[in-house]
Amino acid sequence: MKSYKEMSKEELKAELEGLNAEYQKYLAMNLTLDMSRGKPCKEQLDISMEMMDVLNSKVDLRCEDGTDCRNYGCLDGIPEAKQLLGDMMENHPDNIIIYGNSSLNVMYDTVARAMTHGIMGNTPWCKLDKVKFLCPVPGYDRHFAITEYFGIEMIPVPMSPSGPDMDMVEKLVSDDAAVKGIWCVPKYSNPQGYSYSDETVRRFARLKPAAKDFRIFWDNAYGIHHLYEDDQDYLVEILDECKKAGNPDMVYKFASTSKITFPGSGIAALATSLNNLEDIKKQLKNQTIGHDKVNQLRHVRFFKDINGMKAHMKKHADIIRPKFEMVEKVLDDGLGGLEIGSWTKPKGGYFISFDSLEGCAKAIVMKAKKAGVVMTGAGATWPYHNDPADSNIRIAPTLPPVEDLKRAAELFVLCVKIVSAEKLLEE
Amino acid sequence: MKSYKEMSKEELKAELEGLNAEYQKYLAMNLTLDMSRGKPCKEQLDISMEMMDVLNSKVDLRCEDGTDCRNYGCLDGIPEAKQLLGDMMENHPDNIIIYGNSSLNVMYDTVARAMTHGIMGNTPWCKLDKVKFLCPVPGYDRHFAITEYFGIEMIPVPMSPSGPDMDMVEKLVSDDAAVKGIWCVPKYSNPQGYSYSDETVRRFARLKPAAKDFRIFWDNAYGIHHLYEDDQDYLVEILDECKKAGNPDMVYKFASTSKITFPGSGIAALATSLNNLEDIKKQLKNQTIGHDKVNQLRHVRFFKDINGMKAHMKKHADIIRPKFEMVEKVLDDGLGGLEIGSWTKPKGGYFISFDSLEGCAKAIVMKAKKAGVVMTGAGATWPYHNDPADSNIRIAPTLPPVEDLKRAAELFVLCVKIVSAEKLLEE
Repeated sequence: MKSYKEMSKEELKAELEGLNAEYQKYLAMNLTLDMSRGKPCKEQLDISMEMMDVLNSKVDLRCEDGTDCRNYGCLDGIPEAKQLLGDMMENHPDNIIIYGNSSLNVMYDTVARAMTHGIMGNTPWCKLDKVKFLCPVPGYDRHFAITEYFGIEMIPVPMSPSGPDMDMVEKLVSDDAAVKGIWCVPKYSNPQGYSYSDETVRRFARLKPAAKDFRIFWDNAYGIHHLYEDDQDYLVEILDECKKAGNPDMVYKFASTSKITFPGSGIAALATSLNNLEDIKKQLKNQTIGHDKVNQLRHVRFFKDINGMKAHMKKHADIIRPKFEMVEKVLDDGLGGLEIGSWTKPKGGYFISFDSLEGCAKAIVMKAKKAGVVMTGAGATWPYHNDPADSNIRIAPTLPPVEDLKRAAELFVLCVKIVSAEKLLEE
Repeated sequence: MKSYKEMSKEELKAELEGLNAEYQKYLAMNLTLDMSRGKPCKEQLDISMEMMDVLNSKVDLRCEDGTDCRNYGCLDGIPEAKQLLGDMMENHPDNIIIYGNSSLNVMYDTVARAMTHGIMGNTPWCKLDKVKFLCPVPGYDRHFAITEYFGIEMIPVPMSPSGPDMDMVEKLVSDDAAVKGIWCVPKYSNPQGYSYSDETVRRFARLKPAAKDFRIFWDNAYGIHHLYEDDQDYLVEILDECKKAGNPDMVYKFASTSKITFPGSGIAALATSLNNLEDIKKQLKNQTIGHDKVNQLRHVRFFKDINGMKAHMKKHADIIRPKFEMVEKVLDDGLGGLEIGSWTKPKGGYFISFDSLEGCAKAIVMKAKKAGVVMTGAGATWPYHNDPADSNIRIAPTLPPVEDLKRAAELFVLCVKIVSAEKLLEE
C-alpha cells in the first residue's frame, strides 16, 4: 500500500472518505472491549486454580522451620518463600523480604519511608527543598503516580531498545544531588517490551551518584514472563553487578507473582543489600507483625520450586502469545508501509508500545473509545500524563479473547489511519 | 494470709527465705513458657481450618457483583466482605474499606499519610513543629511504637475501668492544636480488658478539638471477643455518636479478623465517614490496585454472615476462658490479701493487667524470665517504654496450654512475692 505521506491531498481525501464509512460500521456494532490495562485473561487465571487445592483443612500449615503459618510472626517471610522468590529474582534468599499481595504497595512504601525517615541515616526527603526522580519514557503510569503523589519532580529520560539513555542518566545522577531515584522496568519494559542490554545494566551499577541516598527502583515485574521459550531476553543481575562495582546499596529490586498466579492474591518481594534490609526492617517492624504466611506457603506448595514456576509460565505464554501475534499481524497488515506509526514486537511482558504521528495519540484513543474500545489513556506513559509529542499509546493485548482482540486491533488501526489522514490533510 | 504490708521485718525475712527456696526449684525445671504476646493458641487456629476448604479449584471465585476475585481491581473491597465486616463493626458497608491482613498496617499507613499529606486538606504533620498524641495508659505497645517512630510526642492519659480520664482528654484536645490524635482500644482494652462506658464514648464524640485534623484512632480490636456469652460488655457505636454530635469526620475505626480466623492471614478494615474515605482513597489508589480479594471471599464463604462469625467466637471463648480463669485463680489464691498487687478480671479481649507495688515490675519480669517464663517487657504498656511507677505488667494467657499456664502463673506469683518482699524489706 502507498504511504500516506506520499499521497496527494486528493488521494488522502478519498482514502479518508472510505475510512470514515468503515468507522460508521464499527459504531453500529456497539463494541465494549478493553485493551487498557495489563490484566491477565480468564484462561490465565484458570491455570492457577489448582493452587486453591494445595492447602486444605487436612494439611499441616507449618513451614519448613516449624513456624505455624497461621499465627502471628515472621516479619520478612517464611524461608521457603524466600527461596522460591529468590530463585525467581536470581537473588540469595538472605537478600529478600516477602511482602503482601502487591509490589506496587512495596514501591509506594519504599518512597513513603524515604520521605518521612530518609534512607540509611540520610535526611528525610520531606525535609529537602527538592527531590527528583528520573523517569525513562515511555514508562509505567503507576510508577509516575507514586512520585507525583509525593511531590517528587520527574525528569523524563528517553528509552531506546537497549534501555534508558545512559549518557543522560549518568550526567543527571552525577551532577545533581536532588536526583534520588530512577524508575526502571528493566526486562520486557512497560510499555515497549524492551530489555536493558548488558552494557546498560553495567552502566547502571557503575553510576556515581551525587546523592548518597540515590537508589535505583528496579521493578523486575516481567523477569520470567517470556512469550517464546526459545527466544528469550536475558538480563544481567543488578544486585551482583552493583556489588562488584562498589555500589552494593544502590538498588531496590521489586517483583511479585501477580502475573504468575492471581493478580490480587499473589505475593510480592523486595531484594536488596543487607544494609538496606536492616534499614527497611527498622521501619517494617512498626508497620506490621508480618505478611500473609499462609498465602506464601500456598504459593510454595503449588510451585514446589523455580522449575515448577517456569513450567507454569510456559502455560501463560501459550495463552497470550497468539494475542500478541494477532495484534502485531493486524498492525503489520493494516499499517505496514503507511508511515503513520511504529510499534514494538516484544518477546515478553504485557504490552506493545505504539507511536503515532506527532499530535495524534489523544485523538486516536478518543476515537477508539467512541467506538467502544478502551485503550490506556494517551499520555499515561509519561510523567504528569504529559507526552510532549502526543504520540505514544500503550496496547495491552492480554485480557480480551482473541477474536475480540482482533476486532479491537482492527478498529485501532482504522482510528490510526483516520486521525493520521486528517492530520496530514491539515498540514 | 497475712498482708505483706502488715508483716514485721522478721516475718518478711522468714517468708522470703521460703520463697527463694521455692524459686530454686523452678530454676531446676528449665521452663520455657511464653505469656508475652496476645497470640491465639493452636486449638484456636484449628477451629478455622475449615476455612481452608471453602475455596478450591472447583469453586467459582466471582463475588456477588460478578467481579473475578482472582484478577486486579476493587480498591476498597468486595461487597460481601464490606457487609460482613460492616456487621462485625456495627457500621454501614458504605463506610468501610477492606484492607490486607493487618489492621496495625492500616493504622501505620493512616499516620504515615497524615505525616506526608495531611488530613482532608490540612497541613501535613511532617511540616509542623510539633504533633502530639494522647495515649491512655497502660495501653498497646504497638500503637505507641507507631507514633514514636514518626516522632510524635506522646502524652499519657490515665485509664480507669470506664475508659480514659475524659476531663484530661477534653482539656488537652480543646486547648492544644498540636494534639492530633488519641489511641483507643475501647472494648476489652489492651491490657486491662476495660470497656469504655456509654458516657465516655459520648464525651469522645462531643470533643471540641482545637485542631481541625484531630482524629480518634479507635482500634476496636476485640469488638466481638467475649469470654462469657451471658456477661458481655457493650460499646456505644462511635461513628454514629460522632455524627449525632456534629463531629462526623472525627474518628477512624479499625478492626480485623486477626483473632477470629488466622492472625497472619485475616482481613482488616477501616470504618469512617464518607469524607474521610474520599480523602483516604485519593492516597490508596496510588499505593495499590487492590487488596487480596480471594482471601476476602474465603472469609465470607466461611462465615456466611455475622451470625456465623458470632458462633465462631463462642468456640474461641470456650478455649481461652479456662485460661483466663486459671490465671485469675492462681493470682487470687497466691496474692489475695497480701496487698502487693492488683489485677483486672476482663470479660473479653486477650489480656490481664497486673499492677505491682511501685518500682517492682521490671524486677518481677526479669525474675520470671530467669526461670524461663517470658512476660511482656515491663514498661511496654507505656509510651517510650517508660512506666514512671514501674508497676504495670501485661499478662497474655491465650498461647500456652492450660497446664503450662498454671505453672507459669504460679511462678509469676512467686516472683511477685519475692520482689515485693525484698522491696518492703528495703523500706
